[in-house]
Amino acid sequence: MTAEIVSVGTELLLGQIVDTHAPVMARILAECGIGCTRRTTIGDNWDRLVSALKEALERADVLITIGGLGPTVDDLTRDAIAAALGDELEKVPEMEAKLREFFSSRNIRWTESIARQAEKPTSARLIDNPNGTAPGLLCEKNGKIVIGLPGPKGEFDPMAYGPVKDYLETIQGAGVIHSRTLRIIGMGESHVEERVRALMDAENPTVAPYAHTGEVHLRITARAATREDADRMLDPLEDEIRRALGHHLYGTDETTLEAAVIAMLKERGETIAVAESMTGGELAARLTAVPGASAAVVGGAVAYSVAAKQAALGVDSALLASAGPVSGEVAEAMALGAQRAFGSTYALAITGNAGPTADAGDRPIGLTFIALATPNGVTVQEQRYRGLREDIRRRATQQALATLRQALL
Amino acid sequence: MTAEIVSVGTELLLGQIVDTHAPVMARILAECGIGCTRRTTIGDNWDRLVSALKEALERADVLITIGGLGPTVDDLTRDAIAAALGDELEKVPEMEAKLREFFSSRNIRWTESIARQAEKPTSARLIDNPNGTAPGLLCEKNGKIVIGLPGPKGEFDPMAYGPVKDYLETIQGAGVIHSRTLRIIGMGESHVEERVRALMDAENPTVAPYAHTGEVHLRITARAATREDADRMLDPLEDEIRRALGHHLYGTDETTLEAAVIAMLKERGETIAVAESMTGGELAARLTAVPGASAAVVGGAVAYSVAAKQAALGVDSALLASAGPVSGEVAEAMALGAQRAFGSTYALAITGNAGPTADAGDRPIGLTFIALATPNGVTVQEQRYRGLREDIRRRATQQALATLRQALL
Repeated sequence: MTAEIVSVGTELLLGQIVDTHAPVMARILAECGIGCTRRTTIGDNWDRLVSALKEALERADVLITIGGLGPTVDDLTRDAIAAALGDELEKVPEMEAKLREFFSSRNIRWTESIARQAEKPTSARLIDNPNGTAPGLLCEKNGKIVIGLPGPKGEFDPMAYGPVKDYLETIQGAGVIHSRTLRIIGMGESHVEERVRALMDAENPTVAPYAHTGEVHLRITARAATREDADRMLDPLEDEIRRALGHHLYGTDETTLEAAVIAMLKERGETIAVAESMTGGELAARLTAVPGASAAVVGGAVAYSVAAKQAALGVDSALLASAGPVSGEVAEAMALGAQRAFGSTYALAITGNAGPTADAGDRPIGLTFIALATPNGVTVQEQRYRGLREDIRRRATQQALATLRQALL
Repeated sequence: MTAEIVSVGTELLLGQIVDTHAPVMARILAECGIGCTRRTTIGDNWDRLVSALKEALERADVLITIGGLGPTVDDLTRDAIAAALGDELEKVPEMEAKLREFFSSRNIRWTESIARQAEKPTSARLIDNPNGTAPGLLCEKNGKIVIGLPGPKGEFDPMAYGPVKDYLETIQGAGVIHSRTLRIIGMGESHVEERVRALMDAENPTVAPYAHTGEVHLRITARAATREDADRMLDPLEDEIRRALGHHLYGTDETTLEAAVIAMLKERGETIAVAESMTGGELAARLTAVPGASAAVVGGAVAYSVAAKQAALGVDSALLASAGPVSGEVAEAMALGAQRAFGSTYALAITGNAGPTADAGDRPIGLTFIALATPNGVTVQEQRYRGLREDIRRRATQQALATLRQALL
């Protein structure tokens, strides 16, 4: 059984708002074991909308529309679903009575356009909308299913996660589609693929790699009758991938690198402090974004100016003058300064030039030094990143966390 | 001239990540006066991808693909564009040499799959990718244009806003659609709308409000023959909105609140330091994310633990014990401590409890104190935020920046 999603609205199509409903709907379909094969976004244009719905109905068993059910002339989806199914529109008197009561109880003047929301294609039944005025639509005709959902988030979410999900669970006999994400650091996408290549040809469960900034994710997905069956298929596959990738695999699903590092520190009863120049607080922000971080994160210093490096971290002014603020020597002094000032087990320091102009003297954009102070001494590495200011900062914090993780292993 | 966008990737299709690139591309098309009529999302499936590309080419003059240009077997877009255009694939020797050099300069082992990124459809020319390995593709054939862009944000954005936009501006003759975003702080969406309601009924230029965390954006859009004509329509409209909203309007287009504040500080030759507990470096990270921030941002202290508040900021231990770390008194002491330690004109301090558990003693989740130290003394405000940990942190940094801006006005 396959499904397609059509999101309707000129604002969506032109990118003035980002479509977050279609991803929600796609995840619900997957959880119900229904494969989503295509998503389409169409503006408030009658001909294009009807064409898109007809095409989707030719390809898929289930068609879900999002948006365009409201009262204004821009709201075309109700009529377009009827046209695509070859249905007429009919008024539902009880629905109109409900709408009239809703508006009069709120002292809002009734206009005839509101009554359009009480209409439905002949093959449809209405889906109750406790959080708004436009009901959803559920049509079954000629072996096809069409579900029409409203666009406002407060109306869409409860309907999608509630009656629509309940319904979708009953129509499929194909079980569930369940995925896990395995998160990998210190290895590029093509090398990850090389190690798991043999597993990628299987049809079920599937293995697919995705590159992110400074890490790679492997998504493993099983189709099975139940969630438990899917887990039984994924467990040995995950084990096999873990053997192939070793300690490069740092976490699963929503476990971020910072969360993995903090869990390791907590388990050892150790702490971390940070000293940041180029990354300006981003490393501290990533670490403290993890719930419960306070058990492992003592604090940090953002030493953006030369004076701050001296004042907050006690970096020697002669060293700053001779080596320059973007240097391995200064990174080392910053890490030791943070470790001393905050009394932490470890301290990470980052200094560099993130661009777009050579803020830090004449050092090239992307040049970065990362130092890690441990109870046994301090190590420094030099990196050279490419990309935008935000990418360089992100890569530097990612590398710093990876370095700490390596030391903790 | 019409365009369609096809986003490629199973992760996108199944809703595991939200597609933010297609909206960016749609806005660029609008700015170039090219009407985007449909967007499609397809998974990493050869038959479905080739069909979707062929269908789009039948309907539209310009087809833009996003994603699927990488080195793995899942990356099908390069081959699919060739198939849809009836092209062969050919290797570009200079590109392969460039890739080999890139990998060897970084001591990364070469694998044969990497070389796929040096291939192109016969009718394509390559678009340089200074931030990654996969070049973009630009094909002109049989009166149709196909542009293939890579998926990683750090590669997609510079290519889309750079050479692709430049190219699209040259091919259209139908005028432009030009928008400006007016950014507003300290006023809710309905109050903004109330003040500009009369301007919202016009067809051209249009005015539309959008709510964001802690601020409201008004998007004003004009259709005109040239960018200059559009600007001539938008200028008086922007003036009228500025009169209606006064100092609540803090910036336009990509000017973030932190960028606006840094510009004000630079103009006055003044500086800022920050002291953060609950927000853990996020305020410092926002400020230092602004290019050229170093002229105004001295540094910051992330004082997550009680000990760090004493050590890094000199907050009195008796005060910490009596008032508690989440208190107006401690916020004030943190701000004064940062101002003193960093020698800055102003200092902002944030302490509070962002949840999910009551990290900071028994203070309720969302309770936040924000202090601003100025040359004339220190002020403290108490806030109570609702939402998730990340929302509370974001709202607190937003309010801190708004407070500093207010003081600078």
